[in-house]
Amino acid sequence: MSLTVPFKQVDVFTEVPFRGNPVAVINFLDTDESEVTQKQLQAIANWTNLSETTFLFKPSNNKCDYKLRIFTPKNELPFAGHPTIGSCKAFLEFTKNNTATSLVQECGVGAIPLTINEGLISFKAALFDFEGISDEVITGYEQSLGLKFIATPALLHTGPEWVVALVEDAETCFNANPNFTVLTQQTKQNNHTGIILAGPKKNAPIRNSYEMRAFPTAENIDEDPVCGSGSVALARYLQELYKFEETTNITISQGGRLGRDGHIVASIIKETDGNTSYHVAGHSITVIDGKITL
Amino acid sequence: MSLTVPFKQVDVFTEVPFRGNPVAVINFLDTDESEVTQKQLQAIANWTNLSETTFLFKPSNNKCDYKLRIFTPKNELPFAGHPTIGSCKAFLEFTKNNTATSLVQECGVGAIPLTINEGLISFKAALFDFEGISDEVITGYEQSLGLKFIATPALLHTGPEWVVALVEDAETCFNANPNFTVLTQQTKQNNHTGIILAGPKKNAPIRNSYEMRAFPTAENIDEDPVCGSGSVALARYLQELYKFEETTNITISQGGRLGRDGHIVASIIKETDGNTSYHVAGHSITVIDGKITL
Repeated sequence: MSLTVPFKQVDVFTEVPFRGNPVAVINFLDTDESEVTQKQLQAIANWTNLSETTFLFKPSNNKCDYKLRIFTPKNELPFAGHPTIGSCKAFLEFTKNNTATSLVQECGVGAIPLTINEGLISFKAALFDFEGISDEVITGYEQSLGLKFIATPALLHTGPEWVVALVEDAETCFNANPNFTVLTQQTKQNNHTGIILAGPKKNAPIRNSYEMRAFPTAENIDEDPVCGSGSVALARYLQELYKFEETTNITISQGGRLGRDGHIVASIIKETDGNTSYHVAGHSITVIDGKITL
Repeated sequence: MSLTVPFKQVDVFTEVPFRGNPVAVINFLDTDESEVTQKQLQAIANWTNLSETTFLFKPSNNKCDYKLRIFTPKNELPFAGHPTIGSCKAFLEFTKNNTATSLVQECGVGAIPLTINEGLISFKAALFDFEGISDEVITGYEQSLGLKFIATPALLHTGPEWVVALVEDAETCFNANPNFTVLTQQTKQNNHTGIILAGPKKNAPIRNSYEMRAFPTAENIDEDPVCGSGSVALARYLQELYKFEETTNITISQGGRLGRDGHIVASIIKETDGNTSYHVAGHSITVIDGKITL
């Protein structure tokens, strides 16, 4: 029997349609999760051909506002950044909620706290590890990227296995022309998802402004337009490098080389209990609004 | 100023959602073409991330029912097969036309006649050339595909530059595991879009039934789920090989290895004037229906 439910395709990390990173969001808030199979959800996500398609269900944990299942065209993910922000935007619109300032998303990694402030949606990243990589691997990446790093890169286990590397300035990052054939081979061989490349904007009016690019080549994707998990990885890397002692916002531009214009704020927050937490915030806009028939 | 217009995402060469090849169709029938720029259309098609996104406009030629502009994520195409069928389906629904049995589509290659028969939409392919390829190139493709061809392949200039190659049977085609890294290098080097591989279904109830696969590796896509232009190329190739003297329908299954289940009928029609024409027919279904905001 065919089932028709509400559908939105939301552009994330932008306020201007087609300049951010899209996510398709399917509203199963009024559908029992047992009515759809894993195979059906995977088939839908394969068909949309977007980096992620998400499905909103009623939460199973009553401390959460909704349950989110996130699929790439090939598999289900426990968590992902831009789909979390886009799906929260869609949830607020589906439920005609204009007043919420905080929500909790249930997903594969647990309960994710979200805050909403004048359209800006922010999530708190789960904790993740940090690891060094060998000089030989670093030299290989410098060669395939065609540039020199200004600090020792590191591997960040954010879910995706991102190698974060810094270059001298934003222009060097923007102008990089990786040899994608070689970089793909290297990242697959090293079991890294890909490279997060960033360079500081030297004359920016805001401190800690960066140009960022994401090359998830082990996923057979040369470049991702605007990358939530990459921004968390960058913030965590910069904290390790510069040892910020106060809450610090990293302002990130991404996607220019792909005709996009994404904006992310990745925050390093010093909690009152002495711990440091990482948060990602972005604007989003619903571009396609309608119904989907299964 | 933002513009909101009707939107559909249609699944082509299937009657079951998510088993065919999707196309996004944007309805500008009530929008003057001068109100949107090439750059905007390209940005939309880049963002949907589908193999093709189309835009319906009022025709400029009054013998046509509508004008169709077809974009891949990277450029505009003069014509494409599955987008033509999906866009015709969307046009009929947008204009609430349940009675048309023929329509004419204006597009980059000229006026394309379409027929509609109980939901099955068919288009007449434009004429195209046929060319031999060298033994060395053929041997290279046999090696990267890991199989032997049963007849000499040929290059068909259908728009895409398809090399059509036959194998012994449908199973051999279905089970082929190309070395995509090598095939990508070869097709790029040879200026071929990719390979159309087909094998006859030996015990099929319908004569001239084929399993087909499309590998457009020079476009950095390993495999296309269901391919209209590939089916025309196959029909033209089979006509050259078998010299059918009567109108012949080639029944094609495609997409099984990608979890799809596409069905195409490619017809070799003997016209009353003695000429032979090629037609492609398929079912389609609207899966996403709503509005898009520019």
